[in-house]
Amino acid sequence: MTSLNTFPTPALVLDRSRLLANITRMDERAVELGVSLRPHLKTAKNIDIARLLDGERSSGITVSTLKEAEYFAEHGIRDILYAVSVVPAALPRISRLLQGGVRLQVILDQLTTATQLAQATTSFTSPLEVLIEIDTDGHRAGVEPADPELVRIAQALDQAPGLSLRGVLTHAGGSYGCRTRAQLEDHAEQERSRCVAAAQRLRDAGLPCPVVSVGSTPTALSARHLQGVTELRAGVYVFFDLFQAGLNVCSLEDLSLSVLTSVISHKHSSRRLIIDAGGLALSKDHSTAELPDDCGYGLVAEAGTGQIVPGLKVTAAFQEHGVIQLQDAADFSRFPVGSRLRILPNHACMTAAAHENYLLIDGGETVIDVWQRVNGW
Amino acid sequence: MTSLNTFPTPALVLDRSRLLANITRMDERAVELGVSLRPHLKTAKNIDIARLLDGERSSGITVSTLKEAEYFAEHGIRDILYAVSVVPAALPRISRLLQGGVRLQVILDQLTTATQLAQATTSFTSPLEVLIEIDTDGHRAGVEPADPELVRIAQALDQAPGLSLRGVLTHAGGSYGCRTRAQLEDHAEQERSRCVAAAQRLRDAGLPCPVVSVGSTPTALSARHLQGVTELRAGVYVFFDLFQAGLNVCSLEDLSLSVLTSVISHKHSSRRLIIDAGGLALSKDHSTAELPDDCGYGLVAEAGTGQIVPGLKVTAAFQEHGVIQLQDAADFSRFPVGSRLRILPNHACMTAAAHENYLLIDGGETVIDVWQRVNGW
Repeated sequence: MTSLNTFPTPALVLDRSRLLANITRMDERAVELGVSLRPHLKTAKNIDIARLLDGERSSGITVSTLKEAEYFAEHGIRDILYAVSVVPAALPRISRLLQGGVRLQVILDQLTTATQLAQATTSFTSPLEVLIEIDTDGHRAGVEPADPELVRIAQALDQAPGLSLRGVLTHAGGSYGCRTRAQLEDHAEQERSRCVAAAQRLRDAGLPCPVVSVGSTPTALSARHLQGVTELRAGVYVFFDLFQAGLNVCSLEDLSLSVLTSVISHKHSSRRLIIDAGGLALSKDHSTAELPDDCGYGLVAEAGTGQIVPGLKVTAAFQEHGVIQLQDAADFSRFPVGSRLRILPNHACMTAAAHENYLLIDGGETVIDVWQRVNGW
Repeated sequence: MTSLNTFPTPALVLDRSRLLANITRMDERAVELGVSLRPHLKTAKNIDIARLLDGERSSGITVSTLKEAEYFAEHGIRDILYAVSVVPAALPRISRLLQGGVRLQVILDQLTTATQLAQATTSFTSPLEVLIEIDTDGHRAGVEPADPELVRIAQALDQAPGLSLRGVLTHAGGSYGCRTRAQLEDHAEQERSRCVAAAQRLRDAGLPCPVVSVGSTPTALSARHLQGVTELRAGVYVFFDLFQAGLNVCSLEDLSLSVLTSVISHKHSSRRLIIDAGGLALSKDHSTAELPDDCGYGLVAEAGTGQIVPGLKVTAAFQEHGVIQLQDAADFSRFPVGSRLRILPNHACMTAAAHENYLLIDGGETVIDVWQRVNGW
């Protein structure tokens, strides 16, 4: 058994017990809401976690890059939703996945794309399944439920011999702007009702819409009900992070991901610890600045126990240097140069992306496994 | 010959002519200032660029991670300065590099570290060369020139049989806070004079100090002179970026790095283009927000020519989605779904770090080579 102490820093640490508890929580949530869960692997980007997520359900996964799709397909996952608007240039890679026996679903929100895809897939032996992305909160992409374009896109998909219209999908990214439980519940209801309304418009036009897919971690954990929805997607809940804790959809004790770092310098004159986790190891994501508790570039925890050190955060992040402003000069002796800490990230998806693997622990300091990540595109 | 059009997006694009011009500019600058140049590879992280930088000089390189040091050593570079405070836990990797015949220099700013290193290197057959990091602007790490600790650290290093005191080093990161040419010149002079003063204190104490190393791209390009300095370090100048252009140490036409992206959606209701370069492909660095011209998460250029499209920038960055707010609805027809753009980054070091390689072009759209990067730690 190897200790965390023997690994170079900075490094990504993942706590197995917390990970499993987070997985169970969302599984139970999906059962409670009566929908299937299609976890979004954009956060974890790892097959070991995908297998834990899959469990006995085999209801498939969601990915954000074709590289993830290819990686998970190589590792045996056969049901993959690629949830970023597809463009025709992606078809060769998609076609290879389909030919490899993977059930791959794609999304789009443009009539032009639907038409181009229809033309480009006429020779496909099994149809490419397509969902239409719905905009339920003006956050990002998607066609609005009342937009006449919605039915036109659906008709173009339905009439194309190489395509199969599967339904509608939305992501309530605007939920990150909510600040209270009531706002989150309302946002989840808006996501649900508008996506269901879009599905109804398709059915009213005589079109198939077996799938109604919604999701974001905050709305998944806040929805009062999901009537009319068939599928829930969420990703960051496997790790949670300071932003999610700031939204009160998890507690700080739920955070399963952290960055192991070494104290590399004491700046007595400015009362600062310098650590070797900077903007690359933590990311420059400073999203908690929008929340009541600005966590800087991360909160500080003890390396061994993972216990949060009250009052400390990473106040500045250069490329390879992080700065922790101390309240009390006596703290220098608590954190000698060469000692180690762990940093809890603002946004787990962004922080994890700089790292090639996870050091898996289970509460203590023993590294029980090393899990790889699939970064890039 | 392969066109940029055939590569999946997002992808990192590097313009060879601009790269070479930037390299020549800093080479000439070092000659003009009468110092040797030790380029910092923390930005490029690639051996092909290291070889272009090295030219006939063979004066060595600077790195920010031991992984970079190991990579460049494997590729034949024998003189490497690891310019992040060393901790004793790094010694096994350092020792392997030394045993492999690499001349590796390290830096530190703590008496404790010097003492620990002295004890840990008694069995080293060739001494580990050490520079003392000097704080010349309160920006990050380093011992201040007037701090009595400086001479104590130097004495500890000088007396250790396994260590060799090589001199002093500083990084004027505070130069990023300058806003005028006069401020930059003054900051460069402060960096120079304080680092030279630190060197003088060592010599006054009868200690060796052959190396006086300074550097940051803005100060390197602004220094009125570098009397007393022996070595200049800089890194981001090989690519430059929007932040450097905002400091007026380069023009927008000097930027050699960009991110190739596809338009994946048109949001007519909010007049937005959605692209497939988001916070991962561009980084969440929003440093130009501090400058008069806030470039959002990057300026927009034509994919083929690299010409900047006036008035457009990436106004929001989600994990895999970027948003470009259009001024004029007529612009939708200029940038159809499926068309491609290039995004100029705020901070090249952060943006490049998400990518595994560079697509090398030379003005046009033809990819003349693909160069690898060494990310991680």
